[in-house]
Amino acid sequence: MSKYWSDSIKQLHPYTPGEQVSGRDIIKLNTNESPYPPSPAVAAALENLDAGSLKLYPDPLALDLRSSLADNFNVTPNQVFVGNGSDDVLAMAFMAFFRGKTIQFPELTYSFYPVWCGLFNINYINTPMTTDYGIDTAALALQNGGVIIANPNAPTGKLTPVATIGELAASSSGSVVIVDEAYIDFGGESAVSLIDQHDNILVVQTFSKSRSLAGLRLGYAIGHPDLIEGLVRVKDSFNSYPIDSVALTCGKAAIEDKEYFETTCNKVIASREVLTTGLELLGFDVIPSNANFVFAQHTHKAAAELYQQLKDNNILVRYFNKPKIDNFLRITVGTDTEIGALLNTLKTII
Amino acid sequence: MSKYWSDSIKQLHPYTPGEQVSGRDIIKLNTNESPYPPSPAVAAALENLDAGSLKLYPDPLALDLRSSLADNFNVTPNQVFVGNGSDDVLAMAFMAFFRGKTIQFPELTYSFYPVWCGLFNINYINTPMTTDYGIDTAALALQNGGVIIANPNAPTGKLTPVATIGELAASSSGSVVIVDEAYIDFGGESAVSLIDQHDNILVVQTFSKSRSLAGLRLGYAIGHPDLIEGLVRVKDSFNSYPIDSVALTCGKAAIEDKEYFETTCNKVIASREVLTTGLELLGFDVIPSNANFVFAQHTHKAAAELYQQLKDNNILVRYFNKPKIDNFLRITVGTDTEIGALLNTLKTII
Repeated sequence: MSKYWSDSIKQLHPYTPGEQVSGRDIIKLNTNESPYPPSPAVAAALENLDAGSLKLYPDPLALDLRSSLADNFNVTPNQVFVGNGSDDVLAMAFMAFFRGKTIQFPELTYSFYPVWCGLFNINYINTPMTTDYGIDTAALALQNGGVIIANPNAPTGKLTPVATIGELAASSSGSVVIVDEAYIDFGGESAVSLIDQHDNILVVQTFSKSRSLAGLRLGYAIGHPDLIEGLVRVKDSFNSYPIDSVALTCGKAAIEDKEYFETTCNKVIASREVLTTGLELLGFDVIPSNANFVFAQHTHKAAAELYQQLKDNNILVRYFNKPKIDNFLRITVGTDTEIGALLNTLKTII
Repeated sequence: MSKYWSDSIKQLHPYTPGEQVSGRDIIKLNTNESPYPPSPAVAAALENLDAGSLKLYPDPLALDLRSSLADNFNVTPNQVFVGNGSDDVLAMAFMAFFRGKTIQFPELTYSFYPVWCGLFNINYINTPMTTDYGIDTAALALQNGGVIIANPNAPTGKLTPVATIGELAASSSGSVVIVDEAYIDFGGESAVSLIDQHDNILVVQTFSKSRSLAGLRLGYAIGHPDLIEGLVRVKDSFNSYPIDSVALTCGKAAIEDKEYFETTCNKVIASREVLTTGLELLGFDVIPSNANFVFAQHTHKAAAELYQQLKDNNILVRYFNKPKIDNFLRITVGTDTEIGALLNTLKTII
């Protein structure tokens, strides 16, 4: 605490990301990265990059990348905003659409949402989960100045059907509904299909999961041009060039390699079933997941203990010491080899 | 304007960066980039980069890069903060130290400062310049909740002596003095030497100018560990991983190649003298510059007209259509060849 900090900074509770460890012998299943490298087209783009060109500022409009994304989603570039990771995009969206309002989001969700509310002085209401850890969208639509949901939700992995999101948007007219689709490519249907009907839906996605580019920091939003313009106004009042030239080039290469994208997503989906079945056989209750992770609790072993014992065996998973979820582990879907090692270790422990 | 925008966003006046053009035949002297490529060590680091490693998140603490910067400046890593360009660092600093306060900065300065004030609802007072376009530091120290100056100043290029900054910090005790040193490496003395005596000085620098890495988006702040901790709190409440793995690696390579850095800075300084003399011979008044640009007005040709005529000849310089400076051109120091072409074209025009 310092006398120089502004009052709002003193009261912050910053987000804590999962541990980033180095060392080759760690099996890292704690931050939902892809177990696969990015598309070979990314490696090629990186190889062809002229270091000399880095002396110049990147395109502040990021038009090439936005055009590739627009083609991919069958929208126009003025319906696409790009940022320095989806956290950056979401932070800009909170500033653009939620400041001065009271918003709602589910009690169990991405724990960065209340942090942005704290940073930008936004009031929020948490709605309780349904009995099976689902999102109660009817409750979210009541009395709202804005809504954000993660779909599939984090850390549960549960999917909300896209039709339900359409109903939520319709009953929230007058305020923005952000759909944070960081994990949508692992078995969900995107709400991008709804943006022409609903000018208040903003869909946010990331390159960090299904595109295997967490290290590059790229995220994007898709929605009505007026929402995109609002985001651009914030970006141009914060940092005109948030995305570097390397990320612009490599991101474009990743988006354009649809075949690799589909192959790796399908591999993750198949491995998720192996992981789920394996955990169930070991006595875990696993919430049905549409993400690249599962959220599971054991019938009699405490999650905190399992987390530590796995760590002692060089396997990192995520444990949240928080009410209602402190007996769960969130486990990223790794390669089949990594899943095999995890299940074997758990077998020994349990 | 959209009904979905928050009130504060409706009132924003976003920053307008200089044009980024493509095309090889343009002589680009409008955004103060380096005319030289980054250090060969950057090209080597880029070549050695394993694209596969990009599937993992970068180090959220950026410890390797911060350690290199700390070594370079003879400080400790907890006195160093890094961000996604110095604009990102400055935006975080405005949030951390200036929100809820009334700050002061000179009337002529980097035009992003009032934009951040608008975004974060910070009040500001502009102090008038001295008669020779200098910063009136005595006026800045009066009634302040915070001060920011650019040193050398933009767009004038004028240097404030480091001793004067020490006096400003002493008379501003209780509030933070940010010294934005984007251009300090072209002939100024950094205020980093003052941070041990003055716990309220935050020095901000960038890789975009003297390190030839505008395309990578890297900036940093150096100051008392309490100030750095305030910045980290904001960063971790905004985007835990603002800097991608490529920038972390290449930035470190750039900082560690001191010889190349000194050589290219000295070349720019020498070329600045060529440019200044050349402009003076053509009838320009040139404000003595310690930056990698000069700010000049012609005795009888209007700046707006010169700007357009240069543009018609494929030479881009920066023109600000703003009170008090609307008869100046800001011209980046290019290579000697580029300067020769500029001076020849101006000769023809004038």
